[in-house]
Amino acid sequence: MKKFERLSFLKPYQTETSPCKIKMSSNENPFEMSETLKQKILDHLSRLPFGRYPDPTSQQLKSIIANRLSIESNQIVLGNGSDELIQLLTLIVGDPKGRVLFPSPTFPMYQVASDIAGRPKVTVPLDNHFCLDFSQMTQTELNQIDIAFFARPNNPTGNSFSLDQIEWIANQGIFTVIDEAYIDFSDKPHCIDMALNSDNIVVLRTLSKIGLAGIRLGFLIAKSDIAQTIDAARMPFNITYPSQIIAETVLTEGMDEINSQINTIKSERQRLYDKMTAYKGVQVVPSDANFLFVQIENGNQIHQQLIERGILVRNMSKYAGLSNYLRITIGTPEENTAFLNAFSDIYLGENR
Amino acid sequence: MKKFERLSFLKPYQTETSPCKIKMSSNENPFEMSETLKQKILDHLSRLPFGRYPDPTSQQLKSIIANRLSIESNQIVLGNGSDELIQLLTLIVGDPKGRVLFPSPTFPMYQVASDIAGRPKVTVPLDNHFCLDFSQMTQTELNQIDIAFFARPNNPTGNSFSLDQIEWIANQGIFTVIDEAYIDFSDKPHCIDMALNSDNIVVLRTLSKIGLAGIRLGFLIAKSDIAQTIDAARMPFNITYPSQIIAETVLTEGMDEINSQINTIKSERQRLYDKMTAYKGVQVVPSDANFLFVQIENGNQIHQQLIERGILVRNMSKYAGLSNYLRITIGTPEENTAFLNAFSDIYLGENR
Repeated sequence: MKKFERLSFLKPYQTETSPCKIKMSSNENPFEMSETLKQKILDHLSRLPFGRYPDPTSQQLKSIIANRLSIESNQIVLGNGSDELIQLLTLIVGDPKGRVLFPSPTFPMYQVASDIAGRPKVTVPLDNHFCLDFSQMTQTELNQIDIAFFARPNNPTGNSFSLDQIEWIANQGIFTVIDEAYIDFSDKPHCIDMALNSDNIVVLRTLSKIGLAGIRLGFLIAKSDIAQTIDAARMPFNITYPSQIIAETVLTEGMDEINSQINTIKSERQRLYDKMTAYKGVQVVPSDANFLFVQIENGNQIHQQLIERGILVRNMSKYAGLSNYLRITIGTPEENTAFLNAFSDIYLGENR
Repeated sequence: MKKFERLSFLKPYQTETSPCKIKMSSNENPFEMSETLKQKILDHLSRLPFGRYPDPTSQQLKSIIANRLSIESNQIVLGNGSDELIQLLTLIVGDPKGRVLFPSPTFPMYQVASDIAGRPKVTVPLDNHFCLDFSQMTQTELNQIDIAFFARPNNPTGNSFSLDQIEWIANQGIFTVIDEAYIDFSDKPHCIDMALNSDNIVVLRTLSKIGLAGIRLGFLIAKSDIAQTIDAARMPFNITYPSQIIAETVLTEGMDEINSQINTIKSERQRLYDKMTAYKGVQVVPSDANFLFVQIENGNQIHQQLIERGILVRNMSKYAGLSNYLRITIGTPEENTAFLNAFSDIYLGENR
């Protein structure tokens, strides 16, 4: 098919879908929404005119987000998940053939979006501590790079890159995207102020990790002139009517519930970290996110044995340099206990 | 902002939002969903795990659509509205700088998507009867064109282009997109079989015109190898969980209701056509869609006077060559009667 020659390298997206009772693989919020909050959502949805187009500007939702973050609506661009915003940025920023920089390993969408846009990628491996390898990064031809993506906290490693280094990159005139998908689980400072004071920095956020993966709502924060330029290139009705209503409801009436879930996830992260680091031969990266990045001998085999016990974690070994690494999403306390028990059985059973 | 130089021509999307009681401007299904069907949707949504990612392949929804159309799931690509599919096609088909052909006037998204992708546009004006101007089209340098878009029925004119001419274009080796957004209101044959037997033709459909504009569900139909290649370039979670559930419910439990609404819209279209053509100085294009394209002296003024009476229709006069044209979406019988009465008052009041 010569029409699609350029895309012959593309493989359909695949995710692990082993039918497991306990799913600790996709960095979702593991808690079920309360019936009270769900009922409020259903009440609002029952009044939704399904046959009508949604507000193309999502003005009400943007103003709720702006209020929560103490910023202005015109500093926000909404996306059908951050994915859409990442795709849009690779499409519109700088020269259409300009290079895209990101570290490795990181969130795969930066690479996928660059490939689809047909832009050359500059991938800089993280150092042994999964930090940005600054000396290597400064040796790349930075003046040929148009966009850089940094997930902070980084996925799948869970640590947070140095802000000084990211800012230095932006100061070279490179349009710098700081993807804060996991910032709600971090105690480190966020970058919104940095973005609002820069012509080169934008921040990405998402509701997917804190309890609304189903509705696909990502947003970009930038100085208003930058945000408005990006917004003009957005497809007008990209946020569905139900997603607007559900996000509005949760952001106004559900944040106590969600914040309490986030706190539990953070304390459970500490419990899982303490337990896992106690095993000889298990390396755990200190995490600012809602998952742990763990290196274990025989990781592949353990991944499989966990599945046999009904627990799905993400096996990272298909990625270069990540054999025997697992990414374990923090579950509910009960799920985490089940995971720890299963892991103990499997791991000590094999090594005792 | 040099990062966005290429996009300085972009203007934010604007839609007419005069707060009118009767909205006949966006080609939506004017009927409210029955309480029975809405309750079924809410029942399904009440069991939706909002915190979990949706199925990235929307397998169940695709199989429901495939069944309805007697095609295969792997011949379908789903989009967040047809808009997303139009954008994706301008992004991936052929040479990234290859030209995009479409007639004028037509659905503006072909032009917007081409602009964002940075592809040159070849616009061929329709003839005096709003048909494809074949002699002019064949005089363009067709061998330099990579994609052609034809809305059939066409928006905003409402008529259906000749299939022979479209097929001739596809036979020149041009990847040809037949956008059937309004086909449900047409008695002319659709192009699904033509697409499934061609390496160069794909069909676009949408649920937006028949009652689900709010959930933004478009789909593309093509030979399975073409569909699978396009699907691999789609962002994996582009269809939200609620949209999947709502579309599944309506397509399995709501089609009797929707088909009956479509029939009413078609007979109301005839009524509106007959009434409007009876006015001297009013030209109405025979329509295969859920709207009428009408040329009226003082169209601008009439548009404004209708707004003053609480009725919003689409004023097309901002588009080149369309001054004094209005696009009037068929409403409910009551809305259409209100429109006809208001129009009669305004028009005869001025011309009597």
